[in-house]
Amino acid sequence: MATPAFEYYQAHQKQFLEGLIRLLKVPSISTLPEHKPDVRSAANFLADEFRAMGMQRVEIIEGAEGQNPLVYAEWLGASGKPTLLFYGHYDVQPPDPLEEWSSPPFEPSIRNQNIYARGSSDDKGQTYILVKAVEGFLKSEGRLPVNVKFLIEGEEEVGGEHIEAFVPKNPEKLRADAAIICDTEMFAPELPTITTGLRGLVYTEVEARGAAHDLHSGMYGGAAPNPMQALAEIISRLKGPDGKIRIPGFYQRVERPSAKELAAWKRLPFKEKEFLKKEVGSRALTGEKGYSVLERLWARPTLEVHGIRGGFTGEGAKTVIPAVATAKISMRLVPAMNPKEVIRQFTAYVKKLTPPGIQTSVRVLSSAPSSVVSTENRYIEAAAEAMEQVFKKKTVYMRSGGSIPIAGLFDRYLKTPVVMMGFGLPDDRLHAPNEKFYLPNFYRGIEAVGRYMELLGS
Amino acid sequence: MATPAFEYYQAHQKQFLEGLIRLLKVPSISTLPEHKPDVRSAANFLADEFRAMGMQRVEIIEGAEGQNPLVYAEWLGASGKPTLLFYGHYDVQPPDPLEEWSSPPFEPSIRNQNIYARGSSDDKGQTYILVKAVEGFLKSEGRLPVNVKFLIEGEEEVGGEHIEAFVPKNPEKLRADAAIICDTEMFAPELPTITTGLRGLVYTEVEARGAAHDLHSGMYGGAAPNPMQALAEIISRLKGPDGKIRIPGFYQRVERPSAKELAAWKRLPFKEKEFLKKEVGSRALTGEKGYSVLERLWARPTLEVHGIRGGFTGEGAKTVIPAVATAKISMRLVPAMNPKEVIRQFTAYVKKLTPPGIQTSVRVLSSAPSSVVSTENRYIEAAAEAMEQVFKKKTVYMRSGGSIPIAGLFDRYLKTPVVMMGFGLPDDRLHAPNEKFYLPNFYRGIEAVGRYMELLGS
Repeated sequence: MATPAFEYYQAHQKQFLEGLIRLLKVPSISTLPEHKPDVRSAANFLADEFRAMGMQRVEIIEGAEGQNPLVYAEWLGASGKPTLLFYGHYDVQPPDPLEEWSSPPFEPSIRNQNIYARGSSDDKGQTYILVKAVEGFLKSEGRLPVNVKFLIEGEEEVGGEHIEAFVPKNPEKLRADAAIICDTEMFAPELPTITTGLRGLVYTEVEARGAAHDLHSGMYGGAAPNPMQALAEIISRLKGPDGKIRIPGFYQRVERPSAKELAAWKRLPFKEKEFLKKEVGSRALTGEKGYSVLERLWARPTLEVHGIRGGFTGEGAKTVIPAVATAKISMRLVPAMNPKEVIRQFTAYVKKLTPPGIQTSVRVLSSAPSSVVSTENRYIEAAAEAMEQVFKKKTVYMRSGGSIPIAGLFDRYLKTPVVMMGFGLPDDRLHAPNEKFYLPNFYRGIEAVGRYMELLGS
Repeated sequence: MATPAFEYYQAHQKQFLEGLIRLLKVPSISTLPEHKPDVRSAANFLADEFRAMGMQRVEIIEGAEGQNPLVYAEWLGASGKPTLLFYGHYDVQPPDPLEEWSSPPFEPSIRNQNIYARGSSDDKGQTYILVKAVEGFLKSEGRLPVNVKFLIEGEEEVGGEHIEAFVPKNPEKLRADAAIICDTEMFAPELPTITTGLRGLVYTEVEARGAAHDLHSGMYGGAAPNPMQALAEIISRLKGPDGKIRIPGFYQRVERPSAKELAAWKRLPFKEKEFLKKEVGSRALTGEKGYSVLERLWARPTLEVHGIRGGFTGEGAKTVIPAVATAKISMRLVPAMNPKEVIRQFTAYVKKLTPPGIQTSVRVLSSAPSSVVSTENRYIEAAAEAMEQVFKKKTVYMRSGGSIPIAGLFDRYLKTPVVMMGFGLPDDRLHAPNEKFYLPNFYRGIEAVGRYMELLGS
């Protein structure tokens, strides 16, 4: 691999890192309205890079009012060669709780070959791998081995409304032989991995209303309905202590992975004790009995409460019975569950569980189906080969418990195979304090994507 | 009642109201550390008034570091007459949720003979009744019909640590024939009421810890413990949907009121439908079957959740499994429950209900026993008589579901009968947005306390 592009990769690691640090410094938190200017600034940063490295066409694509822009770039000079659509996202999750970060979330800090910052792994670091892999060819050879289109979004963490509207309307512009999503992780350090399945997501807010206004728990406790108590009752009945979700019909369409896939997962270097100790750090794992941890994480649906708003949570003691309380509750879906059906089942069951005196309403914040891809296609095989050559280990296939709605979207509207090459690590703490990205994977990721283009172009 | 004091009351209503407005403008929120200066400012306001009206001795009594001062004042010139200890508090609850106030909580606004402001009823308005009743005599006659000591605290809403330490150490200074607490309500508008019982309180924070740090619900959902879910499970098991508290042993010491007391409650002008519609405003009432609403509110123990902190509660969708979540849970106690025993029972049961993978801890923020007083004593009889003369209706006896820890403290350390004359109304929205105080009761309350002193001094 001593081509000019690979020499460029080796020679420019310092510049690549500097560029990544600049991108990580932008607090492009898509869920917080006050960060709108930062979100735009991250989009502009990428567009500027695309222009500077010589992409033929670069666009900042505006959506409906309030939506974050898509960044599009293309280089289509490899006549007769395959076309790849590269996907990533430049928006990030909120960093709270801030006090748990060892270094500030938007001041990247390098410790032990890891770069710590919100978005370092999810997904700026990985998006930047795609950008730099392409830059290497353009800057050193003036051309790419294949045709490339980039589509980078800024709403991945908030439901992706813009891209969801854009893709179905622009199949021609986005037409490609394969879509490469760089937003997943490797099963273990040094173990090249391709993700072949993702869980879907239904994210809701359940609001419970009791009295017309907040009440004093001394004066009214014992007769007035308490919406916090009602939410606790509803939540505890949605999922049993055995990890089984109690929503009627919820499991009816669930398909188990094939015996072959389950057998392959058993061969993965997974140690439950280590996972518990190093990744989770709790006293015990939870979840459905009768399923391995990997199956629970990748191929079983779940239901989680993310937070409950309402009442008094400050310092000290306020004896209030709140009038309103709201719980954020999401479900992860697996093949072949249907998000719309799940929303109906969930809403109906919440209504049914609502105790007397309380009124509930369910609002859906985002939803996406699960997706699985077949490993038997040229674009996945080449990706496995490229990663193997760079990492010097046989590539494994895994699924992910997370949700990347864009995978289903590409599959459905572009009819293109989706290749999920990821370079994150299991302990990257996505969405949590002290998110980090392992820098050797940043550099090897760039080489792997470069090699992938070479393999497909040869 | 055409004595000089009563003429003064009639002639000074405008000044009384202006003084009350000044006191209500001080945001003396004891639970929020940033309001420490306001708390002190409210104490100084009262001390200044006591000095100006001619109390013989006025003290601002400092407590341990961080505690709010007590305001003490005395006039002991009525030799051979009874001594009354007047109690009130100058601290208030936080005003949140702010957006639900029709007028700002610390800018008193008068509408329909009600004054709207945080603390208007609980307890600045009522405390100020005591102050002005005494002022009327001192300013018009230069003397009082009885001896009077004031003890006004600034931590009633946060557990009252200072007064709790002060009273047992100063029985001589506080010695009195009766303690008058002006911090309760009338059963109905125009219906003079004396409160003869209060529920006790145990206020706790239950912290649940799962993973070592926040986790992504996609990556870990299905295997990692969720402390929000655990709290929901614990809460839903602490109290059943039937309103019965499930803590083992919780009800073992509960004493029902006498048949006579229960019969008297039945004669009170209480309409469940109206209570539901006008005071609570929910679709239905809740609570233990087999007990009347008044018994549920006054003589049955309860358990309420006030808020749950942890996870993500902002706008939008954050898919986090929080590492830690904390619930504020309180219990109201009735005779003859023992707060210490209840704390032990509660803590043990929370531990027992804690699901695998989760660690819980219970912190007690405040606790106080319930209290009941006998109506057969001179000081209560005179209070009933004084209120009857001013309100022109027969005084009724009720209990309150709230907790006034000081009542138990006076009873225990000063061995003095406690007289709870209250002038709040059931719809005053204590601790809630749009708290108000009915101004005619402010003026009549001053007269009733004035008449009470006259009756006891004659």
